[in-house]
Amino acid sequence: MAIILDGNDLSQEIRSELKLELNKLLANKRSPKLSVILVGDDPASSVYVRNKEKACSDVGIITETFNLESTSSEQELIQLVHSLNTNPNVDGILVQLPLPDHINEIQVINSINPSKDVDGIHPFNLGQLVQGNPIFVPCTPLGIQQILIRNNIEISGKRVVICGRSNIVGKPIANLLLQRGNGADATVTICHSRTRELASIIAEADILIAAMGQPNFITGNMVKPQSTIIDVGINRMDDPTRKRGYRLVGDVDYASVVDNVFAITPVPGGVGPMTITMLLNNTIKSWIRTNNLSGNTA
Amino acid sequence: MAIILDGNDLSQEIRSELKLELNKLLANKRSPKLSVILVGDDPASSVYVRNKEKACSDVGIITETFNLESTSSEQELIQLVHSLNTNPNVDGILVQLPLPDHINEIQVINSINPSKDVDGIHPFNLGQLVQGNPIFVPCTPLGIQQILIRNNIEISGKRVVICGRSNIVGKPIANLLLQRGNGADATVTICHSRTRELASIIAEADILIAAMGQPNFITGNMVKPQSTIIDVGINRMDDPTRKRGYRLVGDVDYASVVDNVFAITPVPGGVGPMTITMLLNNTIKSWIRTNNLSGNTA
Repeated sequence: MAIILDGNDLSQEIRSELKLELNKLLANKRSPKLSVILVGDDPASSVYVRNKEKACSDVGIITETFNLESTSSEQELIQLVHSLNTNPNVDGILVQLPLPDHINEIQVINSINPSKDVDGIHPFNLGQLVQGNPIFVPCTPLGIQQILIRNNIEISGKRVVICGRSNIVGKPIANLLLQRGNGADATVTICHSRTRELASIIAEADILIAAMGQPNFITGNMVKPQSTIIDVGINRMDDPTRKRGYRLVGDVDYASVVDNVFAITPVPGGVGPMTITMLLNNTIKSWIRTNNLSGNTA
Repeated sequence: MAIILDGNDLSQEIRSELKLELNKLLANKRSPKLSVILVGDDPASSVYVRNKEKACSDVGIITETFNLESTSSEQELIQLVHSLNTNPNVDGILVQLPLPDHINEIQVINSINPSKDVDGIHPFNLGQLVQGNPIFVPCTPLGIQQILIRNNIEISGKRVVICGRSNIVGKPIANLLLQRGNGADATVTICHSRTRELASIIAEADILIAAMGQPNFITGNMVKPQSTIIDVGINRMDDPTRKRGYRLVGDVDYASVVDNVFAITPVPGGVGPMTITMLLNNTIKSWIRTNNLSGNTA
């Protein structure tokens, strides 16, 4: 039987550590603060934001959420970002994506002060990641790395195959794992919609990171025996047996894969909770930097 | 017989195009200007700088070179960069690397205004490259892409294997070729000193980019038949039969590889001249942006 890489358990562990670390450092300083901007009323985005608020509150991070109308202009949004950029009480700025079509996402991301970009998606932060001296690593990639490190899964010298080349998962996790040093030094291959011979590449992966957004795409016959499978997909599948009418499935066909591999993340309860945990990590890291403290974060 | 991907010929072609483009746009505007900073008197660096000055002059770019003492402080160097950052007559700033050991290279690179970083090595520019909307791409990666595109070598869907993970070649060429769109869409694998089973990975490469700095490392029995070989290495090998006592060899053992492949870059005369040509390209691109013109560059 495969080891189930439980992201809920690991998240609890890391969140407890972060809370302890914060309490140790807090003394009579102001608490860390994360400002969240939500544009429009997409139900999924609203749920994500509420989950982030709750998780922040649990470890002692103050949140403040700005709900902008879906008709808000790009300029209004960027003005709000600028005011948060210069507000000395704000440690992290998170703009919940996706944004409405009339707003240029890249312009908004690029308007965030890189020192408060706790999502790690500003080009300056992505570039520091490429250089090998990152400050804020995007939350999902950082969470994946933590899952591997804290479960003692060797990365150095291993073949990592990443399916998917998004700006928030595929590209940054590739750049993270190919760096020198602990928790990295992997031989990294990035596959995507234009990849030919996908099956033969996947079959070589010691660590497979599935982030293409295709429900149950990776099946048991495709994976390398004894490999580690990280499933980033969160897809809704109609399921009339469920009260809400759907269930969440990953990009990996868990049932057919689980018996063939060394370790696997479930969906839900694998990568998802780690993403939020790394947002907490990055917000506390920003607060530590602002206050010129030294503390332990990822 | 393999196609020899002649970087000198291609450079001449592109430099002629750049010169024409510049003359077309120049009217009575000031000419583009590149400021070069050379610290110390390393003979190789001095040669590189002279070659860059000459190449700039040939296409109509003005250069200005600052020769700083090898004992100059990091602060002096950064102050000079800052004065060039704000000088409206300077389109490009190039700090010749490597810098003396007492100077932190990253600090100096990060002090360059990204809008004048024609070497494309500032984190903001590397991050825009990761995002998929680069302004200045590092010169060697951009030159390699031009070699492939202008020789009609298909990149989309091909397996590209990059040996070496430097900040100026390996990492940016990986990020460039895995993007969506023309001249990209490759399935990219990055190998390095920690890679196991290097031989089997190299054997799968439709396009092999050798940038590990190991003279003649890649031999004919390692490459995939009919593949394309890009040799970024420039290594000095003792050679008493030459007047200067050495010859330049690549990371690829040209003699044993050339009969087994579809196309190959020679050393010297392959990637090397293209690197300088892309510096010209980027400087003219910067000048076009500063003057709000529209013009053709890579």
